[in-house]
Amino acid sequence: MAQVNQPGSLRFGPEIMARLEQLASISHDHGALSRHFLTPEHKAAGELIKNWMEEAGMKAGFDAIGNVVGRYDGVRPGLPAVLTGSHFDTVRNAGKYDGMLGVVTPISCVKALHEVGGRLPFAIEVIGFADEEGVRFNATLLGSRAVAGTFDPTLLDKTDAEGITMAEALRRFGLDPARVREAAHKPENVLGYVEIHIEQGPVLLNKGLPVGVVTSIAGANRFVVRVEGLAGHAGTVPMDHRQDAATAAAEMLLFIEKRCQGTESLVGTVGVLNVPNGATNVIPGVAEFTIDMRAGDDAIRKGAVADVLWEIEAIAARRKVEVVVTPQHEAHASPCAPWIMEHIADQIRAEGIEPRYLASGAGHDGMAISDMTDIGMLFVRCGNGGISHHPAETMTVEDADLGARIFLNVLRNFKAKSAS
Amino acid sequence: MAQVNQPGSLRFGPEIMARLEQLASISHDHGALSRHFLTPEHKAAGELIKNWMEEAGMKAGFDAIGNVVGRYDGVRPGLPAVLTGSHFDTVRNAGKYDGMLGVVTPISCVKALHEVGGRLPFAIEVIGFADEEGVRFNATLLGSRAVAGTFDPTLLDKTDAEGITMAEALRRFGLDPARVREAAHKPENVLGYVEIHIEQGPVLLNKGLPVGVVTSIAGANRFVVRVEGLAGHAGTVPMDHRQDAATAAAEMLLFIEKRCQGTESLVGTVGVLNVPNGATNVIPGVAEFTIDMRAGDDAIRKGAVADVLWEIEAIAARRKVEVVVTPQHEAHASPCAPWIMEHIADQIRAEGIEPRYLASGAGHDGMAISDMTDIGMLFVRCGNGGISHHPAETMTVEDADLGARIFLNVLRNFKAKSAS
Repeated sequence: MAQVNQPGSLRFGPEIMARLEQLASISHDHGALSRHFLTPEHKAAGELIKNWMEEAGMKAGFDAIGNVVGRYDGVRPGLPAVLTGSHFDTVRNAGKYDGMLGVVTPISCVKALHEVGGRLPFAIEVIGFADEEGVRFNATLLGSRAVAGTFDPTLLDKTDAEGITMAEALRRFGLDPARVREAAHKPENVLGYVEIHIEQGPVLLNKGLPVGVVTSIAGANRFVVRVEGLAGHAGTVPMDHRQDAATAAAEMLLFIEKRCQGTESLVGTVGVLNVPNGATNVIPGVAEFTIDMRAGDDAIRKGAVADVLWEIEAIAARRKVEVVVTPQHEAHASPCAPWIMEHIADQIRAEGIEPRYLASGAGHDGMAISDMTDIGMLFVRCGNGGISHHPAETMTVEDADLGARIFLNVLRNFKAKSAS
Repeated sequence: MAQVNQPGSLRFGPEIMARLEQLASISHDHGALSRHFLTPEHKAAGELIKNWMEEAGMKAGFDAIGNVVGRYDGVRPGLPAVLTGSHFDTVRNAGKYDGMLGVVTPISCVKALHEVGGRLPFAIEVIGFADEEGVRFNATLLGSRAVAGTFDPTLLDKTDAEGITMAEALRRFGLDPARVREAAHKPENVLGYVEIHIEQGPVLLNKGLPVGVVTSIAGANRFVVRVEGLAGHAGTVPMDHRQDAATAAAEMLLFIEKRCQGTESLVGTVGVLNVPNGATNVIPGVAEFTIDMRAGDDAIRKGAVADVLWEIEAIAARRKVEVVVTPQHEAHASPCAPWIMEHIADQIRAEGIEPRYLASGAGHDGMAISDMTDIGMLFVRCGNGGISHHPAETMTVEDADLGARIFLNVLRNFKAKSAS
């Protein structure tokens, strides 16, 4: 099979895996990978990436938000660029592949072009995004929003856990918060955006496929739900007199689960569930939980959300409990451009693999970049049951190598969207 | 109707309500009623009860565990006694009626006998039990177990939240921990035990009945359940690949609820429910909950518990999650003696009320006393939806008065169990 190589034949995999290990060693937590925005470790990792970019023939440096940007010019200076990249910040106690694969892989691809003096009819810009996860300031996609020109300047006043504002953190990093908007790219200079990323889920793994084409980055709704019933003595209130907040919540959970089953790319999760101050011998008067619902298609998501909200009200009415559903967040889906999806699919077919199309339930920098230009994403298989945001996240060197071979072709064969 | 009196005609109610208010004012929490074992407030409340007992013609004093015991002799000294009483310790932020009604009411009954010089062919002993709730040392029924002769001396080494042992607390109270067993009564000196108590639930309230006859103090099982599934990214793991600990727990909750519905006196409660370290965007890897199941009949309880444990295993297997069920507590039911139940029912009928029989889901001192002698209980209606263990616990002065009238007849007309 095309995707299995003899170790000796791996052109990109070993370098990519070694660099991911090197990046993973730069952490502010001992024995775990945690690297947040505008920390000394962010700077150290960024410097390392900048060195790799320069070694690959790019002009490279930090931009106004702390992204590392490397440019590999085309056949002449100043040509429009295909953008690529991913983030090099991490969640707490992270895996080594999430984000960083999409920084390291295109650097290896450009290096391969550079080694043969290959110049394309367009430039390639590789961006290591400074903050996608949003851990430090509880605001996500900071690097890619700055590049897309949609960075919200009021975020500069947000503070981290130690009370340091983002503006002050930028100054300490050596950047001028007044100049963040200079990180923005001009859409007319951009041909499109492509990103390679670990899947962070089990779909490709379970299909036995090393790579896949992303169709859409899922839209999402988040809610906090508070159910208020009536507390009571666990021994003295007969079952048919109860207004139990926990069993009402349990019925709501099972409806969310059932409603989201059987529809491709639709998922619904109750991640927080709690009876505040619960005691073994007290019927719960209050239960609280969160809802996270996502789908690659906005109509599917909205239909499911509406059904869930209706049913929550119906369950509450039937059980004579009160319910307050508070929306926390809503984001529309970011569909990938069909012309870029087909381009990526063609490069997968060239490796003898039938392209598998799948939505991304996780958010990515492409969500922000899609406000500026068309986007596309190549997913690489995630090992270990698909676990991510966890040190147990894994990828094989063979998959990393295959991903790079395909991604080199994605870059090399990129064609601007034809006017239609 | 017999249970409704004109205010002027209430012989016992006003005194009982006034004394309950007075007891409720003795608390170690400002603005809330909290009175725990062997505290200065325990002593102050006990002294007050002792004074009321003496005023009612009893010989009274603290016993070796800190119970207040008042004895009203019969037609001659040394006759066997009918025991009565209840506890005067409280939960945190308690109601005024739970326990104390059963101390104050029989004192008023004995006072009424004493005022007319009435002496019975048996003695009456009224006991204010020092600790039923078990808040301070996390061990319940201390006062009544000492009286029944079943006090476990190893409990003397238990410490409170401040590290004080029960033995040391007894010494500080002025008692000798080596002499606790002297609180035990000799069964041959006891005719039986009767207790008047607020229902602490809504059954009588919803039936429109002021009083009822307890059939049994429910047996109980308590378990802690830990469900272990697989944590995962809320966006990237398709619904049919999940091993969600929270939805598994939700299904278990609903089974417990359903299994306990429709069977008289059987109740099942999940009072603690929690996803530890849950996050909105993470599929729960662990969920924890407690189970509290009770029934007046042990066979009913054991059958329901077995069904619940089987179904928990079946749900876990179907959802591919692990489950660990840890038993925390099991107590058999304490049935009331039919001959005492019928005696109480007769006194209710004498007031023109059809006796309603009901199991007690809550525990009471009678559970301990039943190891020594036959027991019976009279329940009085709990207002406010049946709420208890809460400052909103209420009782009307009319119900308190009716309860005392009936209870006076329960005491006055008490007959030793005929040999059969």
